[in-house]
Amino acid sequence: MEGKRAVVLLSGGLDSATVAALARAAGFSVCALSFDYGQRHRYELTAAKDVAAHLGVAEHRVVRLDLRAIGGSALTDDAWAVPKDSLGKEGIPVTYVPARNTIFLAMALGYAETVGASDLYFGANALDYSGYPDCRPAFVEAFERLANVATKAADEGRPFKVHAPLIRMTKAEIIRAGVALGVDYALTHSCYDPSPDGTSCGHCDSCLLRKRGFAEAGVPDPTRYA
Amino acid sequence: MEGKRAVVLLSGGLDSATVAALARAAGFSVCALSFDYGQRHRYELTAAKDVAAHLGVAEHRVVRLDLRAIGGSALTDDAWAVPKDSLGKEGIPVTYVPARNTIFLAMALGYAETVGASDLYFGANALDYSGYPDCRPAFVEAFERLANVATKAADEGRPFKVHAPLIRMTKAEIIRAGVALGVDYALTHSCYDPSPDGTSCGHCDSCLLRKRGFAEAGVPDPTRYA
Repeated sequence: MEGKRAVVLLSGGLDSATVAALARAAGFSVCALSFDYGQRHRYELTAAKDVAAHLGVAEHRVVRLDLRAIGGSALTDDAWAVPKDSLGKEGIPVTYVPARNTIFLAMALGYAETVGASDLYFGANALDYSGYPDCRPAFVEAFERLANVATKAADEGRPFKVHAPLIRMTKAEIIRAGVALGVDYALTHSCYDPSPDGTSCGHCDSCLLRKRGFAEAGVPDPTRYA
Repeated sequence: MEGKRAVVLLSGGLDSATVAALARAAGFSVCALSFDYGQRHRYELTAAKDVAAHLGVAEHRVVRLDLRAIGGSALTDDAWAVPKDSLGKEGIPVTYVPARNTIFLAMALGYAETVGASDLYFGANALDYSGYPDCRPAFVEAFERLANVATKAADEGRPFKVHAPLIRMTKAEIIRAGVALGVDYALTHSCYDPSPDGTSCGHCDSCLLRKRGFAEAGVPDPTRYA
């Protein structure tokens, strides 16, 4: 690996692929981190691997982490239905996974400390998202404060910076930024409830936001919808 | 489960067993959380199960979490030696696991949100410990601040409280408190480098602190040392 390293949380979705491209454009060697966390659909791990290869990351680690043992979300518990055609309904949706971004960033922090990276990137978005509490600026700031009292690296004078470059962007702005950086969105995957072959349902919150983003950006949507 | 629930991080060690007893004494139904995180010695999971049964916890979940994929510690990487007879040497020791308590508390937060608990307990200790950064009051406070901007529960008016009741206690004080609450320390396990049958080495930092604690408390040490 050459140059300064950054750890990027890479889900295989549109947002995290764009974040990885932005980290690379900022001059970092990208250390990508994905989780095999018991998600109902495993296709996103295939997408994460494809995106990592496409972007030429320095390394890509996939960590097993059994969030099903905790449950509490439509994304990790088969007994819960993924809502369809309900975007913009009130409240935090059932696809919220308790403390997921806290858990993922904590793992990213450990990984960063191990590889000597001081920069963490993740694709939180406060605007064009489903209202998850752990996607807000106050969350990002609180995590950065925590990181800087939690680690040997920070104690030794190498503080961490948590980057959430998409946080105030619309989905259309994210797509335009990614296209400008050469991201191939055909490799990315957003659907909460895909077919086993990766075909997107077209009706969950994530598909609806993705479709609207491509339409607003004026970019052809390369996604395979059912 | 009856009454108010608290999630307690239970490693099977002396400190976390005492913390679980303190949470129970405070009137909580204890939801204990342990990790199968690729630790070099698995004996601590046996100890955690024994302690959970002994204390009569409401439930005990063991979550798989592959910290070996991150590495960076003598406790998760076989290539690193566990230091012996070196207590009090300068700096943060190699048994520090990058971001471990951040990761464990993040998982505890998700578990707490799922079971409707607002209280998290863990056995951080700033005095009679090995100088880990994620065992200090500033870390505990920063995690609590994070928890209260990270979750649906906090957004809905159920904020979290992070308890670290041992943080300013000496090991001897911890042992005396546990004995007063009926904790059977013969079930607990502290050694960083035990034999496969659970016999403690007697020379790692953790064994040295444990021995000294029992001696100072004037309590017979029930540990099997090699």
